[in-house]
Amino acid sequence: MSAAVKYPEEFAGFAVLDTKDWNKPKYITFKPKKLDDHDIDIEIECCGLCGSDIMTAMGGEGWGEIKLPQIVGHEIIGKVVHVGPKVTHHKVGDRVGLGAQAFSCLSCRRCEDDNEQYCNKSVTTYDGTYADGYVSQGGYASHVRAHEHFCFPIPKEIKSSEAASLCCAGLTVFSPLKRYIPTDLPKGETPKVAILGLGGLGHLAVQISAALGADTYVFSRTDSKKEHALKLGAKGFVATGTEKDWAEKYYDQFDLVLNCAISLSGVNLGGFLSILKVQGRFVSVGLPSAEEKYDVAPITFFSNGSSLCSSNLGSRKEMLELLDLCVKHDIRPWVEEVPISEEGCNKALTKAWEGDVRYRFVFTEFDKAFGTGKK
Amino acid sequence: MSAAVKYPEEFAGFAVLDTKDWNKPKYITFKPKKLDDHDIDIEIECCGLCGSDIMTAMGGEGWGEIKLPQIVGHEIIGKVVHVGPKVTHHKVGDRVGLGAQAFSCLSCRRCEDDNEQYCNKSVTTYDGTYADGYVSQGGYASHVRAHEHFCFPIPKEIKSSEAASLCCAGLTVFSPLKRYIPTDLPKGETPKVAILGLGGLGHLAVQISAALGADTYVFSRTDSKKEHALKLGAKGFVATGTEKDWAEKYYDQFDLVLNCAISLSGVNLGGFLSILKVQGRFVSVGLPSAEEKYDVAPITFFSNGSSLCSSNLGSRKEMLELLDLCVKHDIRPWVEEVPISEEGCNKALTKAWEGDVRYRFVFTEFDKAFGTGKK
Ligand SMILES: NC(=O)c1ccc[n+]([C@@H]2O[C@H](COP(=O)([O-])OP(=O)(O)OC[C@H]3O[C@@H](n4cnc5c(N)ncnc54)[C@H](OP(=O)(O)O)[C@@H]3O)[C@@H](O)[C@H]2O)c1
Ligand SMILES: NC(=O)c1ccc[n+]([C@@H]2O[C@H](COP(=O)([O-])OP(=O)(O)OC[C@H]3O[C@@H](n4cnc5c(N)ncnc54)[C@H](OP(=O)(O)O)[C@@H]3O)[C@@H](O)[C@H]2O)c1
Ligand SMILES: [Zn+2]
Ligand SMILES: [Zn+2]
Ligand SMILES: [Zn+2]
Ligand SMILES: [Zn+2]
Repeated sequence: MSAAVKYPEEFAGFAVLDTKDWNKPKYITFKPKKLDDHDIDIEIECCGLCGSDIMTAMGGEGWGEIKLPQIVGHEIIGKVVHVGPKVTHHKVGDRVGLGAQAFSCLSCRRCEDDNEQYCNKSVTTYDGTYADGYVSQGGYASHVRAHEHFCFPIPKEIKSSEAASLCCAGLTVFSPLKRYIPTDLPKGETPKVAILGLGGLGHLAVQISAALGADTYVFSRTDSKKEHALKLGAKGFVATGTEKDWAEKYYDQFDLVLNCAISLSGVNLGGFLSILKVQGRFVSVGLPSAEEKYDVAPITFFSNGSSLCSSNLGSRKEMLELLDLCVKHDIRPWVEEVPISEEGCNKALTKAWEGDVRYRFVFTEFDKAFGTGKK
Repeated sequence: MSAAVKYPEEFAGFAVLDTKDWNKPKYITFKPKKLDDHDIDIEIECCGLCGSDIMTAMGGEGWGEIKLPQIVGHEIIGKVVHVGPKVTHHKVGDRVGLGAQAFSCLSCRRCEDDNEQYCNKSVTTYDGTYADGYVSQGGYASHVRAHEHFCFPIPKEIKSSEAASLCCAGLTVFSPLKRYIPTDLPKGETPKVAILGLGGLGHLAVQISAALGADTYVFSRTDSKKEHALKLGAKGFVATGTEKDWAEKYYDQFDLVLNCAISLSGVNLGGFLSILKVQGRFVSVGLPSAEEKYDVAPITFFSNGSSLCSSNLGSRKEMLELLDLCVKHDIRPWVEEVPISEEGCNKALTKAWEGDVRYRFVFTEFDKAFGTGKK
């Protein structure tokens, strides 16, 4: 594509230049952030395409205005090529993963309690702003620089293109499943989990929920993904668009609904709350565009005391646990590899937005695009 | 007021005849429901005025249309004067209380799990409809007939006019406080609870929360109730209308916000969610009029994984526990007694709606109004 990137002075990547052209990232070079004591540099080998990349790239039509140019991508696998002076978790040459968070203070109560994803000093991997004003850039790029705490050692059993999406999609669904699948049910009862929306997050959620011991049902808008859902480990499948009586049929059965959908437009919230048991939870990891709202009032929860919440990413501790679980239970994303390039980004972003992917695009061949990978 | 009521053929009460005149109940007589095997008849001694009475009486301006004529009131204390053939909990002459629920199936899983308030066969004490179509009538009345399970023995230590409001207001706040005040905090940490809205429910919530061992803060719109709040056991008081920085000041401090307000118009939900710790809960027992909604989306909960829910009444088991707690900790509602009559109902309903009560009206002197209490 172009001359080899001039690392470490410069990184290169495919950036959204105008949110109207959200699906047409262009090649740019950019200056990295200042290297802090705990930062490491990753030469990127591959990067997954998360729904959040789309919502961010869309700007005002998605989550809101962004800083341009913006390189998205936060399901990153690569090789450590440099470490800051105080780094202890990693060394040059290690294969590591980086998800959607690149920094937190690590000293507040939230950080100390393994809730660093909720630290109010948190900086996201892209379109985040560091204390010095530097705007972070993501993983559709030659390199990324991030705090070592948010970079994870990848077990040798998992290949890079499959490890990538565990770093955002996997962790994001693992954390609420781990926290909210009840462990105190009466003896003999199995927890029951509904996964809403079978996409990049959803197809990992099914596998993880099943591995955590829950009877897992997939709720999808149509029946086109039924066979896949069962293969992923679902015990049941419901096509909410065509099975008219699903809410009555599953009344009072679920401990947890994990909403993995990228939009609320096809989500009948009342129906999903009604299939919850008393005090069951509807947890959203799906984050629709800014103008989509819930239609709720106190009375909404009155028939069963259910609750509504969201979950943001997960902690480093949970990520390490998830990687273990994936090795043990053979959990892997189903990926479609796309060589990274302007054309590749355009094709994959467009198809992902149309729902035409089974179930995750992962950009590969970064060495060719950026002239990296030289020993 | 009128001739003695012709019990048991007829009961009498003060009924809303037209929701436009929601605060002007008129004396009527009416036929009781058919006596089922487990029903008991209570000759009413006193009855509290709950915010729900107002929301119901207002019809379309409140929770929605109601069946007329409608006698509200569901904080009832009285004497058992008749028992159905299979009643085992009570006998004629006992002093009992009845709250906002009069029936449930007692055989579904929810009923068996002490969640009978969420039974889908539940019938409310007033404006509820039994399987045979009979519409229930409440406690601004001479008598009430209800299933024994929902009638509670009142300990001798608690006088009737103070016991009344424990049956709805007390139970309604006790249940979520009991269920949601965390019991697994790190050693040495005390749970911290915010009570939002210091009214009938709120002033009992403060006492109960403190008795359950939580550091309890009252959030009220103005500072007019500060002294009372502290006397009730609050550790802190916040006037949300005048203390501009309260949300920043209390950021990340609370395990639980219990919303006891009758309207959302003065409630800054975002502020209350922000004072919650990670995975803290905003639980509403307050139920505003039908057109009041929350403004929430998945992103609303993103900064701390907090959740939004409601709680409906409580179980019999919790009611018995609450009565014990009230005896042990000397928890009592602060009541203003009003002799029941058309004038009394009008005055109390009007003042309660204006917030001019400290903190619960309780109607008394039912014997005079209905010619009951003989012997
Ligand atoms: N909370 C976090 O920390 C976090 C982290 C990562 C991603 N996310 C968010 O998670 C969401 C999903 O991301 P993803 O990468 O899994 O996206 P995705 O692969 O595009 O999957 C989204 C799924 O949503 C469902 N869906 C699409 N349009 C819908 C509509 N109009 N109504 C209802 N459902 C619809 C589809 O499922 P069916 O075809 O089965 O109906 C689709 O497979 C995004 O909003 C993303 O931003 C959040
Ligand atoms: N969930 C259940 O099972 C259940 C059971 C019983 C009652 N309820 C409901 O609980 C609510 C409270 O009942 P209650 O008898 O305690 O009523 P109440 O005595 O009238 O108290 C309501 C309190 O709400 C606050 N408030 C009033 N107007 C407000 C506004 N515009 N914005 C914000 N706050 C406002 C006031 O507190 P401050 O002056 O301190 O701000 C007031 O003291 C009602 O909606 C009732 O229907 C629910
Ligand atoms: Zn993501
Ligand atoms: Zn922190
Ligand atoms: Zn009430
Ligand atoms: Zn039942």
